Amino acid sequence: MSEKTTLGNFFEDFRVGQSIAHATPRTITEGDVALYTALTASRFPITSADTFAHTLGFLRAPVSDMLAFNMVFGKTVPDISLNAVANLGYAAGRFGQPVYPGDTLTADSTVIGVKENSDRKTGIVYVRSRGINQRGQLALEYCRWVMVRKRDPASAAPEPVVPELPDAVATTDLLLPVGLRAEQYDCALAGSVDLWDDYQVGERIDHVDGMTIEESEHMMATRLYQNTARVHFNQHAEKTGRFGRRIIYGGHVISLARAISFNGLGNAFSIAAINGGRHVSPAFAGDTVYAWSEVLDKLSLPGRNDLGALRLRTIAAKDHRCTDFPYRLADGHYDPSVLLDFDYTVLMPKRLEGTPSP
Amino acid sequence: MSEKTTLGNFFEDFRVGQSIAHATPRTITEGDVALYTALTASRFPITSADTFAHTLGFLRAPVSDMLAFNMVFGKTVPDISLNAVANLGYAAGRFGQPVYPGDTLTADSTVIGVKENSDRKTGIVYVRSRGINQRGQLALEYCRWVMVRKRDPASAAPEPVVPELPDAVATTDLLLPVGLRAEQYDCALAGSVDLWDDYQVGERIDHVDGMTIEESEHMMATRLYQNTARVHFNQHAEKTGRFGRRIIYGGHVISLARAISFNGLGNAFSIAAINGGRHVSPAFAGDTVYAWSEVLDKLSLPGRNDLGALRLRTIAAKDHRCTDFPYRLADGHYDPSVLLDFDYTVLMPKRLEGTPSP
Amino acid sequence: MSEKTTLGNFFEDFRVGQSIAHATPRTITEGDVALYTALTASRFPITSADTFAHTLGFLRAPVSDMLAFNMVFGKTVPDISLNAVANLGYAAGRFGQPVYPGDTLTADSTVIGVKENSDRKTGIVYVRSRGINQRGQLALEYCRWVMVRKRDPASAAPEPVVPELPDAVATTDLLLPVGLRAEQYDCALAGSVDLWDDYQVGERIDHVDGMTIEESEHMMATRLYQNTARVHFNQHAEKTGRFGRRIIYGGHVISLARAISFNGLGNAFSIAAINGGRHVSPAFAGDTVYAWSEVLDKLSLPGRNDLGALRLRTIAAKDHRCTDFPYRLADGHYDPSVLLDFDYTVLMPKRLEGTPSP
Repeated sequence: MSEKTTLGNFFEDFRVGQSIAHATPRTITEGDVALYTALTASRFPITSADTFAHTLGFLRAPVSDMLAFNMVFGKTVPDISLNAVANLGYAAGRFGQPVYPGDTLTADSTVIGVKENSDRKTGIVYVRSRGINQRGQLALEYCRWVMVRKRDPASAAPEPVVPELPDAVATTDLLLPVGLRAEQYDCALAGSVDLWDDYQVGERIDHVDGMTIEESEHMMATRLYQNTARVHFNQHAEKTGRFGRRIIYGGHVISLARAISFNGLGNAFSIAAINGGRHVSPAFAGDTVYAWSEVLDKLSLPGRNDLGALRLRTIAAKDHRCTDFPYRLADGHYDPSVLLDFDYTVLMPKRLEGTPSP
Repeated sequence: MSEKTTLGNFFEDFRVGQSIAHATPRTITEGDVALYTALTASRFPITSADTFAHTLGFLRAPVSDMLAFNMVFGKTVPDISLNAVANLGYAAGRFGQPVYPGDTLTADSTVIGVKENSDRKTGIVYVRSRGINQRGQLALEYCRWVMVRKRDPASAAPEPVVPELPDAVATTDLLLPVGLRAEQYDCALAGSVDLWDDYQVGERIDHVDGMTIEESEHMMATRLYQNTARVHFNQHAEKTGRFGRRIIYGGHVISLARAISFNGLGNAFSIAAINGGRHVSPAFAGDTVYAWSEVLDKLSLPGRNDLGALRLRTIAAKDHRCTDFPYRLADGHYDPSVLLDFDYTVLMPKRLEGTPSP
Repeated sequence: MSEKTTLGNFFEDFRVGQSIAHATPRTITEGDVALYTALTASRFPITSADTFAHTLGFLRAPVSDMLAFNMVFGKTVPDISLNAVANLGYAAGRFGQPVYPGDTLTADSTVIGVKENSDRKTGIVYVRSRGINQRGQLALEYCRWVMVRKRDPASAAPEPVVPELPDAVATTDLLLPVGLRAEQYDCALAGSVDLWDDYQVGERIDHVDGMTIEESEHMMATRLYQNTARVHFNQHAEKTGRFGRRIIYGGHVISLARAISFNGLGNAFSIAAINGGRHVSPAFAGDTVYAWSEVLDKLSLPGRNDLGALRLRTIAAKDHRCTDFPYRLADGHYDPSVLLDFDYTVLMPKRLEGTPSP
């Protein structure tokens, strides 16, 4: 093999404290936004119309949070997860500065933990990754941990370091965009009358709609993010791989679940935090994705009477309508239909004093 | 089912005179235009090049009329046709202010007719829908009527109201863009030498080219328009539905027919009116769309010697070359290949005095 | 058939010296760039991020050279190759003024050779095609020759004229963008440490990655370029055609090979010339494209110590990993896996004096 090509890092290549500047900075454009809409059916009006975004104090329509997340994630793949066996989890994700078309994101990661597995063939790598805009401002950050193959099973195991990660991002750690204000929020244009006040902890919502994924769609999304993980693109290799076919990038499933959640969470206009997340099983072309959500918590935001936050669990399931809220079985395992278990915090306008509920 | 999710309006929910503000305003961008080109193969130069659009008096390349139409149509779906059994017809469609990338369209509809069907399970709803830009100007409007399911067959029938709709939009009702002038129109750059003067009433044109549609293509187009009709996206549900598969959004078929009509109508640079239209049969992935057109009328525009209008019927057919102009059979029914019967009015430059014909 | 539709030019329609102004000028936008990324997985940072492009002296991120090439090529198809049996070769291709989103390209061609084949059913047409921007500057030019059907086998053969075309574009004929300077080139952001100094003539690089092509993907790319060649789009016709299925536009294969070459040639930030090229065999949906490259020559650029040029041969192969560098067999024929044999010249930063090699 040429020394000029890369096969990515292996478990031995990671050291706690190591800082990695990822390649391929990315100017995000209106073209990316159009493709995101065409591939996910996203309908949140703040990312759909400049006029609506103005009423919330934004300069113009920012891009979808998950579009920005997937762009940053894509940049990390060549360095972090090209040799990953599994993407194990997310924590401590926060969205900061809004990302507008024309902004350029650059990504970096810091290794915050390593732990070899007992089989000595793989190990777990924990990283904190960030997306920074062209003005040096934090657009988003998140921790994730992945199981990565060792180059050489005989290589010495590093001192295990497992970082302490919070169950959820604390309300005081949320980064609200400067200038955001929800007093002018227009429920009619948003397509939903239900506001923060109307949701209850424990409430479960079947998001009704299902979306079938084609090969070209998940590949286009994943290439748009410049994510280079080979399992998504190469049928010639995957036909003899673990599943016999291409695996859909998990971030595309999150994007679909978020878009589908519009029906029932239409006013959850922004994701403020990713508390946790797990890709429970792989998705493949031909699968139809459904989703349901549970309200895990209602969070008041200090000093804000115009908006609050909801902590949500959104479950994506395949080929299974979510009227029965598929989740964990009696034995603790997930229902076989479950693709994604995603724990995140959204912002939602509050009912202004004196405004009647629907 | 959660009260926070929507299943759309049923026949009983519509009242004549009712005004509906549709959700999800949409800023149309260069990204949408690129996708429209990639999905339809549109080649009209006015929407392809700013330079060409300048010579016609436009600020820059406006977006395709059918792109704007489909965007507005998409917004109406959650309120009007989520429970539609059939999209029955269009009338009185007019295009007004040009839509440029960066413009934001908001859609509203007024119910102009309701009539329960004799089976008492469905009824016909007539609406006039409009797309309004961010300056409050009319971008387009059209009437359509759909057959909508009743929530409860036992519910009382409303007083039937059937609006009178014109066979065609009158020449004097056409809305020509301010500043439009065709004296500088460049036939070489447009790719066609035939001008208004060269077409004859009754002339029929086989547009030659065929375009095969893939599942991902029609779904991307329909999601781009944020059209939420479920039959287009969910194979898991549709496999047990009426056709066993996803149905292609009819507006995508109109867009394809319009793009295919370029070969033979290359100088029909703008659609001024939709006189009528009928989706004769459903299209599915794998179908190859062909098209032919007949010139129904030649319309002089008062005070204009630079351009005229043609009233056209364009027929889209599937898996059937249009050399034999498939249309109605002897018994009055449509040829089984026909997908679309579309009656519309286009603008076309006139031959300037002293200019020889081709 | 209507006289208003076109079936394209036949061999008899071409005369040496003839100049053809192609239709449909095209404003290239950020939307086209996003689609190009989504369809090819291009990762060269100069076309990905405005910030990176600034450090090289560009106003903003220019569009990929092959995107500009395919746009110009697409415009030539209706006049040059609608009746082509085969696209035989390229030579003397040069890229000039960078193409930025917002630029409008207009294409023209000059016929530089014609030669009837001995079967009298076809002939070879040689053209020089150019893409000119809205300021009248040359964006790119190239020669190609195609085998075109005769309308009438009995028509008289023209005097054969076969132009002399160079084996490669001379270094002194390369057109470097004004203001281009590579002293600030950031290898970390580019994702590759290997610079011009590190490549050796004769060196071969397997680019490792493979990309499977879906029908919708190659059709979207080809429609984006407004390329009208029917074999790419119409399954209803092609099912009884030469291969029984749609043929992938060769320019899409070049784009994929160029994108795949990033792994091993990450700092080859710009294509300066196309010396030659041959579409060895057709590609079809379902094929997985791999690529490898050989360094044919190392070219010093007069007066430049910041960058040099590499002449490369990049081979694309289908369903065949390129670890064994598939090329010509002992009998001189190509290995059956080979799709493309592409000879071109790229620009690459040189190692600055005093900078250590990797």
